Amino acid sequence: MQTPLKGACVIGQSGGPTSVINASAYGVIRTALDSEHITAVYGAAHGIKGVLNEQLYDMGQEDAAELERLRNTPSSALGSCRYKIADPDADETDYKRIVEVFEKHNVRYFFYNGGNDSMDTCNKISRYFAKVGYECRVMGVPKTIDNDLFGTDHCPGFGSAARYVATSFMEVYKDARVYDTGQVTIIEIMGRHAGWLTASAALASHFGCGPDLIYVPEMAFDMDKFLTDVTAIYERQGNVLVAVSEGIHDKDGKLIAEYGATSEKSRDSFGHVQLGGLAATLAAIVKARTGAKVRGIELSLLQRCAAHLASQTDIDEAFLAGKTAVEAAVAGESGKMVAFERDMSSGQYVCKTVLLPLEKVANFEKTLPLEWVTPDGSGITQEFIDYALPLIQGEPQRAMQDSLPRFAELKKILV
Amino acid sequence: MQTPLKGACVIGQSGGPTSVINASAYGVIRTALDSEHITAVYGAAHGIKGVLNEQLYDMGQEDAAELERLRNTPSSALGSCRYKIADPDADETDYKRIVEVFEKHNVRYFFYNGGNDSMDTCNKISRYFAKVGYECRVMGVPKTIDNDLFGTDHCPGFGSAARYVATSFMEVYKDARVYDTGQVTIIEIMGRHAGWLTASAALASHFGCGPDLIYVPEMAFDMDKFLTDVTAIYERQGNVLVAVSEGIHDKDGKLIAEYGATSEKSRDSFGHVQLGGLAATLAAIVKARTGAKVRGIELSLLQRCAAHLASQTDIDEAFLAGKTAVEAAVAGESGKMVAFERDMSSGQYVCKTVLLPLEKVANFEKTLPLEWVTPDGSGITQEFIDYALPLIQGEPQRAMQDSLPRFAELKKILV
Repeated sequence: MQTPLKGACVIGQSGGPTSVINASAYGVIRTALDSEHITAVYGAAHGIKGVLNEQLYDMGQEDAAELERLRNTPSSALGSCRYKIADPDADETDYKRIVEVFEKHNVRYFFYNGGNDSMDTCNKISRYFAKVGYECRVMGVPKTIDNDLFGTDHCPGFGSAARYVATSFMEVYKDARVYDTGQVTIIEIMGRHAGWLTASAALASHFGCGPDLIYVPEMAFDMDKFLTDVTAIYERQGNVLVAVSEGIHDKDGKLIAEYGATSEKSRDSFGHVQLGGLAATLAAIVKARTGAKVRGIELSLLQRCAAHLASQTDIDEAFLAGKTAVEAAVAGESGKMVAFERDMSSGQYVCKTVLLPLEKVANFEKTLPLEWVTPDGSGITQEFIDYALPLIQGEPQRAMQDSLPRFAELKKILV
Repeated sequence: MQTPLKGACVIGQSGGPTSVINASAYGVIRTALDSEHITAVYGAAHGIKGVLNEQLYDMGQEDAAELERLRNTPSSALGSCRYKIADPDADETDYKRIVEVFEKHNVRYFFYNGGNDSMDTCNKISRYFAKVGYECRVMGVPKTIDNDLFGTDHCPGFGSAARYVATSFMEVYKDARVYDTGQVTIIEIMGRHAGWLTASAALASHFGCGPDLIYVPEMAFDMDKFLTDVTAIYERQGNVLVAVSEGIHDKDGKLIAEYGATSEKSRDSFGHVQLGGLAATLAAIVKARTGAKVRGIELSLLQRCAAHLASQTDIDEAFLAGKTAVEAAVAGESGKMVAFERDMSSGQYVCKTVLLPLEKVANFEKTLPLEWVTPDGSGITQEFIDYALPLIQGEPQRAMQDSLPRFAELKKILV
């Protein structure tokens, strides 16, 4: 263990938000505020942009009870960004500015809460600090509903989104078969390159209320086979429920969301992804083919912000990731991301934290194992259910006011 | 009080389902099973079609614990229909068949659980029974997320859908402003002719996380004014959140969902409601006008089946409506719908049941009072908040299994 650095810390949030990213931020903020070595805790407004613009909120001035409510407040409380930082070997401008701002506020710890791109940012900053000899420990705190971060058993944010997806499928399953006239229902789920969240629809099947067909972006989508399968199920049982990832594409890599003109009826209407996206496009194609009543549903932002359906396991683990990052940094670690390992040795699911070098994590995407997709390409195996089920456990105990969510209200006082 | 009739009862469900329509069905079934006067309780498969087809489930053979779970099981457990029954003066075929089936099974009580159309069906059947002298008491049990039934303070199903809408707006509000680059988010809510559910988005505003603009179908929608207002808010604050009813239309009555060709960019893409509906159409128009990042979200089926976000008040009142219908029928009432009256005399919200003649209820739609819309046509007043807030109260205590819903599993044994 190295000597703890004495100085301030900065926490930033980046990329698309989740239901529990604030639980991770709270894990960082609470642990840092309680640390005898960390002299001040600053929240960067809109991720690294807040550092570059010197827009830092003094977390020490927040009310403790409001901070605690971050556990159940969706989205990125500090604001997020999708800022792609330059390669430091090509352009040092941003990095010099970061050092300037950090030196000014004596920042010696930097925690960055995000997904693949954010870990890349984190890694570049960490390497730059080492190169120029600026003493500051840098730690990545993972988040993503996509569950696609390399080297970790799973990512904070995934379990809650999976619980939302599974619950929504069970509820829609009930709704979409009330009439005896038949219906095809197609539900679009986030995940451009990784099918983890779409696969979570299979959790609903585990309780008899799941999709008949599931399509993930790891497998090429065959429109003809899809239409044959939908039609067969429709003719056999009247109702069909389909889960599709927004990122499904054909064998040539063309996104199905951009398909069009496959039927005369809809020739003028396709090809504009802005107009409803994949679910609507597929719904139109299926309707033209089968004549069935078809409904396309896009879960959209709801799947990543429905904190009321978060998994308590996910909330606790998200907090743990933030807490572990601070404790590890104080103990001397730097250039690492907090990752999770699953320990089943007791026969029960136990989540343990490990630290991974950022350069191993940055910019790699972990996709769904192909062996967890059924051979016909339209189903998910029991192995995935066994993997995902522990992650969605626990109803969150959240603050409410008049039976509506009581979110954290931060003062956000600029330094 | 008349002599109770001795005989069987039939309960049917009709129209679009809600999160709590099964709580009403359970109110009927449980009370009827416990009644010494009712000899058997039959559930009609798919509403009145189940009577016509003699598809009746024997509710007496169901497990009591499973029936109890109907309180928290969304959608219509018995199946629904949208069957428009003929005018008995024009065509008696269906009515003769109903009498035939009812006589065969000695059915002396008929409970129909639905909205406007269902109350019309109920009314016609009641009048026909009176005309031909078939002794059977007919009671309507209200349901609709649209809250548009005449003569009742509110309808079972509305409070839960309103709680879902308000919660979703609060969560999306948080998500839709994480970036400092601005975003216009347009959320489409059900309600073709009545704006009650769309107005419920204002409940989120009550807690500081609501829409900037709300459009209900009771007011003509002016596209130019809408674009001016959205642009002004976007330029002023960067983020805009809009609530729109699926049924908004212009002053000539044309649905906005069918608008198109208002911008060159999107000329070929509009006018096909199946391709994403109103939210997507408005999103494309706003994007073309402002250049902003725009997201259209359709709450779709989720808003009427999200039983996990039901209001316990709504569940209890839905049950009460069913229970009251049975008790009233046994006591001699017929040709009535159970309605609610709000009693605020104690200073607290108290819901009381009253009985309304079916002919007064059938086919009338109760729309949102125009004085509850702000003068500029794009907001909702405090009067609505005060009206709706008591209806969304209470987190449901629902059965779960592995943190997913445990719905009622009925055996559905045909008589």
